[in-house]
Order: sequence, then structure tokens, then C-alpha cells
Amino acid sequence: MRYINFSDEPPAMSPDEFFMNEALKEARLALAEKEIPIGAVVVCKGQIIGRGHNLTERLTDVSAHAEMQALTAAANYMGGKYLKECTLYVTLEPCVMCAGAAYWFQLGKIVFGAYDVKLGFGRLNQKITHPKTIITGGIRENECAELVRNFFKSKR
Amino acid sequence: MRYINFSDEPPAMSPDEFFMNEALKEARLALAEKEIPIGAVVVCKGQIIGRGHNLTERLTDVSAHAEMQALTAAANYMGGKYLKECTLYVTLEPCVMCAGAAYWFQLGKIVFGAYDVKLGFGRLNQKITHPKTIITGGIRENECAELVRNFFKSKR
Repeated sequence: MRYINFSDEPPAMSPDEFFMNEALKEARLALAEKEIPIGAVVVCKGQIIGRGHNLTERLTDVSAHAEMQALTAAANYMGGKYLKECTLYVTLEPCVMCAGAAYWFQLGKIVFGAYDVKLGFGRLNQKITHPKTIITGGIRENECAELVRNFFKSKR
Repeated sequence: MRYINFSDEPPAMSPDEFFMNEALKEARLALAEKEIPIGAVVVCKGQIIGRGHNLTERLTDVSAHAEMQALTAAANYMGGKYLKECTLYVTLEPCVMCAGAAYWFQLGKIVFGAYDVKLGFGRLNQKITHPKTIITGGIRENECAELVRNFFKSKR
């Protein structure tokens, strides 16, 4: 019961909620640029070392996903190859390509917001991430899902 | 029987062999740069519109695979999002990340050289490429495999 609030202050966020909020900020940046609103941050020892949002329209590159931006930025910051101690926070369940990238980075943990039943990597019945990568889904799920849902609604 | 040779000239190459040879040239460029020798080209209507080789060391980016370079170069050349009419030639069977990228590009065809039993996308029992993507493997397989095999032998 860590988050019961006895004061008038707003309830404290868990670290996962805090960093997912940062990923949501990235998603809103994508939205402001008329991109599908998906955002990501990479965190190492409590510090954000990579940020990214969907840039498929701006770069005319269907592979320019939020996760790819955040992971390469993080690896660049680290100056090394692997992100074993790092967590990727992303507002939507990663696709197969991004989960495949996470394999190569030997990512420590993936925390995602909304589930993507159709295109998320979780639809596969074989593990494609690194054997040591921990997966958590559903953090701030509603906010993450609603951003994408409203985006596509406004397109119709 | 298109390739029977009645003259003293060397036998003609099939288009697949010709373009795989171009991918092999890219792989040798990688080798010269001390990268794992994997190369790729993207072909549209008989013309090479994207080239790439493995740049994981130079870019310190484990996701900088030959296919990713060639696909983004091709999409950039096309100025559009999709590569429906295009074929990716790559010397090694693509990994899950690259096959996942090919899904987003709605790639017409993938032709690869050597099989990658451990990390190739073919190990998965579900299709992760686009439903319309045609897959062919084993073109100039020995040359493609030998390049990578010799590279790792020389590392030991």
C-alpha cells in the first residue's frame, strides 16, 4: 500500500508511472507534429538517457518508430553497444521490429503502456526479446491508448 | 533452360544471382571496414535504389544492419512510404528486427543468401513479414556463408 495518500498532496507516482509520463510527453510531441502519438524514453539508474517519438511522417520512413529513436539515442549516450541495465518505457506495446531491436541491445527491461493486440510483439508465441529482458505492460494504459485512439478517430 | 551456355563465355547469371552479387560487394565493403560482412541492395524494376552494409561497429549501434540501411535508402529514393514493388537482396537471412522492418515497408520480396538458423526470422513459426512479401533463400549461399564464417574464424 505504498501509494495511499494521507495528505492533500497529489498521490506520489511509482517510478514506472513517472517515466511512462515522460514517454507520454514524447507521444504528445509526436501528436503536435501530426505523427501517430507514440513516445518512448530509455532510463538507466533512474536517469533518462534517450528520448524519442514517432517520426514516420517527417522522415518518410515507416521504420522511424519512437523506440528506435530512443534506443539508438541511449546507446549513443552510453557509448557502448548494450543496454543491459536500461529500461525502455514506451506508450504502446512495441512491434516485432522494435522488440527485435531490443534483442540486439540486450535491453534489461521493457515497460509499455497500451497493449497492441494486432501488431504488438506479444502476439507471437515465441520469445523474440533477449532471454534476460523483463517485460511489463499496462502502465498508464488508458492515457496511452486514448492518445492513439483519438488520433485515428480525428483522421476519419 | 534459359542459362544453358553454348559458347565459351562464362554462363550468364540469373537476375537473382546478379543482384546477390551486388549485395556481396556491399558485404565485402563491410569486411574491409572490419564489420561483420553482411550486405544488401534493394531493387525496383531492375534498378538498384538502395545499398547498405553492416555498420554496427562504426555507428556503435547494434541495430545498424545492412537491411536497415538499404531499406531506408530505398524508401528515401522512392520518396514514398512503401516498397511494394521492390526486392531486398541480402547476403544473410534477415533477423527478426529486419524482417519486422520489411513488414512496415510492405516489401514485395526478400531474397537472401545464407540461412541463419539461430537468429534468422525463419526460426519463428508465425509469419512476421507482410502477407504479400515473397521469400526466397539460398541464392549464392556458399559465398555468402563463407564470408561470415571466415570473419568469425579470423576473430578467434
